[in-house]
Amino acid sequence: MIVVVGGGPAGRFAAVRLGNAGREVTLVEKGEIGGQCLNYGCMAVCALNDAARHVQRGREFAAAGILTGASEICFSALLAGMDNVQEKIRGVLDQETKDAGVEIRYGSAARLDGRQVFIDGEEIEADAVVVATGSVPAVPAVAGVSLPGVHTAHTLPQMEDLPGDLVIVGGGVQAAEFAYIFSMFGSRVTVLARSAFLKGLDPRLRRLALKELADVEIREGAPLDRVVGSERVEDVGYGGSEPGTCRADAVLLAAGLVPNTAMIEGVEKGPNGEVRVNDRMETSVKGVYAAGDVTGGPFLTPVARLQGVVAAENILGIDRRFDLAAVPQSISLANDLAFCTAGGGGGIDLSVPAPAGPGSFWSVLAGDTGLGKIRVDRESGEIRGVWAASPGAGIIATYMADAIRHRRTVHELDGLLEVHPIADGVHGLIGHAASLLRDRPKE
Amino acid sequence: MIVVVGGGPAGRFAAVRLGNAGREVTLVEKGEIGGQCLNYGCMAVCALNDAARHVQRGREFAAAGILTGASEICFSALLAGMDNVQEKIRGVLDQETKDAGVEIRYGSAARLDGRQVFIDGEEIEADAVVVATGSVPAVPAVAGVSLPGVHTAHTLPQMEDLPGDLVIVGGGVQAAEFAYIFSMFGSRVTVLARSAFLKGLDPRLRRLALKELADVEIREGAPLDRVVGSERVEDVGYGGSEPGTCRADAVLLAAGLVPNTAMIEGVEKGPNGEVRVNDRMETSVKGVYAAGDVTGGPFLTPVARLQGVVAAENILGIDRRFDLAAVPQSISLANDLAFCTAGGGGGIDLSVPAPAGPGSFWSVLAGDTGLGKIRVDRESGEIRGVWAASPGAGIIATYMADAIRHRRTVHELDGLLEVHPIADGVHGLIGHAASLLRDRPKE
Repeated sequence: MIVVVGGGPAGRFAAVRLGNAGREVTLVEKGEIGGQCLNYGCMAVCALNDAARHVQRGREFAAAGILTGASEICFSALLAGMDNVQEKIRGVLDQETKDAGVEIRYGSAARLDGRQVFIDGEEIEADAVVVATGSVPAVPAVAGVSLPGVHTAHTLPQMEDLPGDLVIVGGGVQAAEFAYIFSMFGSRVTVLARSAFLKGLDPRLRRLALKELADVEIREGAPLDRVVGSERVEDVGYGGSEPGTCRADAVLLAAGLVPNTAMIEGVEKGPNGEVRVNDRMETSVKGVYAAGDVTGGPFLTPVARLQGVVAAENILGIDRRFDLAAVPQSISLANDLAFCTAGGGGGIDLSVPAPAGPGSFWSVLAGDTGLGKIRVDRESGEIRGVWAASPGAGIIATYMADAIRHRRTVHELDGLLEVHPIADGVHGLIGHAASLLRDRPKE
Repeated sequence: MIVVVGGGPAGRFAAVRLGNAGREVTLVEKGEIGGQCLNYGCMAVCALNDAARHVQRGREFAAAGILTGASEICFSALLAGMDNVQEKIRGVLDQETKDAGVEIRYGSAARLDGRQVFIDGEEIEADAVVVATGSVPAVPAVAGVSLPGVHTAHTLPQMEDLPGDLVIVGGGVQAAEFAYIFSMFGSRVTVLARSAFLKGLDPRLRRLALKELADVEIREGAPLDRVVGSERVEDVGYGGSEPGTCRADAVLLAAGLVPNTAMIEGVEKGPNGEVRVNDRMETSVKGVYAAGDVTGGPFLTPVARLQGVVAAENILGIDRRFDLAAVPQSISLANDLAFCTAGGGGGIDLSVPAPAGPGSFWSVLAGDTGLGKIRVDRESGEIRGVWAASPGAGIIATYMADAIRHRRTVHELDGLLEVHPIADGVHGLIGHAASLLRDRPKE
């Protein structure tokens, strides 16, 4: 029997792969299936973002006189509806997992000590173990952080009302995504970023992000210092070179994730508690594998899923390696701001505004349809990077990531025919780059 | 000097390519730049569809109690806004064309007689000619078809009010797209299809289309017979095995396009008047090229553009051929219903419901997130076809069309990492197909 600990993307994909291969698998999930991704992460952001984008588009139509009357989001109904959809998806995942022959033990707690596995305190004989316990939100150790009104993504569904003043703590993707959502819903949003906001993001995409977050007050170099209030949060204090305070009806901690490894002992761990693995997802203990967030960043569902599959295939005796090359990523604001890069030096950067297409036609009114940008190696024509801002840019980055991973060239991709219209500035750049490289004088 | 006749996608791309290569180019455009695509076709449908999708999503949110209050589309403001956006895009295209050094002669009429070109009646000395005069809507020769209230896509922007009862004539993509739009805006829509509706479309996609057009009355085998009215259209009569009539405040003719070749003489034409070309886009007359709709179907902007580039490059002495393989297409309803196939026999079909992702999270409430489907050759693992229904499915089909064209295999694409969440059922099927083919017993 194989024990998989954790029913998030990594654990579930590992369990299903093993079950489909005919192995006896027990999946231990102390809470609900789907992990953070479905319950508090990707899908929750998607749910709220879809509503926020609807609100924004509605305002744009209204401003142009195209939409008459007024409508407003009911925040509590939105959260209830989100849970309704998540429950349906949990049902699908549960069924899909059981259909693969996996036994799911809900509400059970698993503990690992080296090669020994315990479920609800009872030791279990296991041929192999996959540790996929995921991660939990990082909670800064400051005064007042336990006051009512201070949330993480995990408790956000219990917010009763839309906060008038919301302080979001964090400077990364999650902070940006929640800032967009709540500012569209009508909260006054302040973001406190410990260092720079969206640090490391391509400057063009970052400028677009700041434009799409025009209503959000962003304070950089402003680490959370304390949360103040008598019954519940009232104010938030921050440090840095210009310390200050801000009013808050609610605080949302969006300052990253930490591997969830309290119940995992006897395997080698890294400095943040992450379980150390090699590219077969093997831990330091033979027969014990780990996959997903518990192994430390990049905390992305597709990475976790693939790591789960890699762990499972190695258990099945298939030699499969995990390679963290060319992972596409995206930030969901008004547009998807998506990107994927490969290592390896310079190249020519080409960029254009994204054309008007499905979901972006009316963005032309505001003079902004997004961005397409590619980086191409001068000599080989290989595509080294892609950046896209538009509706559906996550899809562009997904398929272009494959081109980057396979070192495909603009010459090979030249002549790409799109479905027209398309809100994609990237595809057109490929032919343009191919012409440029063909026509340029040989050095 | 090179004369390009027509400023639509084919003519403009030819002119820009030639201009960028340093050639002297005159582009003759009797109306407005951008052709049908921008002014009456793709972009107009996109504009109206974006608004229709907004209306539909608003209704879904309202039904779930998430959106309170009511808002309504103001049809005349929508048409005015659309023209506003189109005008901005015309400005961009005009500038881009001039930036390539192309002289544009607006409002001029060109005429061709074999190798002789006339602009406003005056013969012009041209080193080469590109005929890109496009196409015009097919207008059935029936009684009453000239009555006020009978429109094509070209006159749709002059519709004063949203029709209460709208009859759409046609059974193809354009008829389906307008049916979705007007039914979402609140018209009672009847579609009269001469034979079957969306004939030839993959059955799964067709079922989804019919579901998304649930409010539309579709009559198949019902060819337009006559339009009846005193001052303007009042009724529409149709023939077929069960002839009948229906009330109409307006009629929209969406029954296809015919090549626009009245002013083109002395070159070989086909049975529908289309200018005959070879794969270099050469006509029967040396030095005269043709590209785009004027050469006959498939009446798609990306095809027209690429044909324009192919014509231009052959004029420049670059031997480039046009190949109509693996052209991706899409129908814009509530979802994009997109597809791309390659010829060549059977294969394994795999399909799944599309997952919830950007733009489709709330579709889970109605139990429908769309579709992903691929066809894979059993022996080689080559991808032979893709079908996708979801927001952004046009982007999926665009990039998968490249995979199909290059005969890439599921094994090569296995391990594709997506941006999560993604409303794409296709990417996940690739890994699934790769496992299936790997695991299956060798015969």
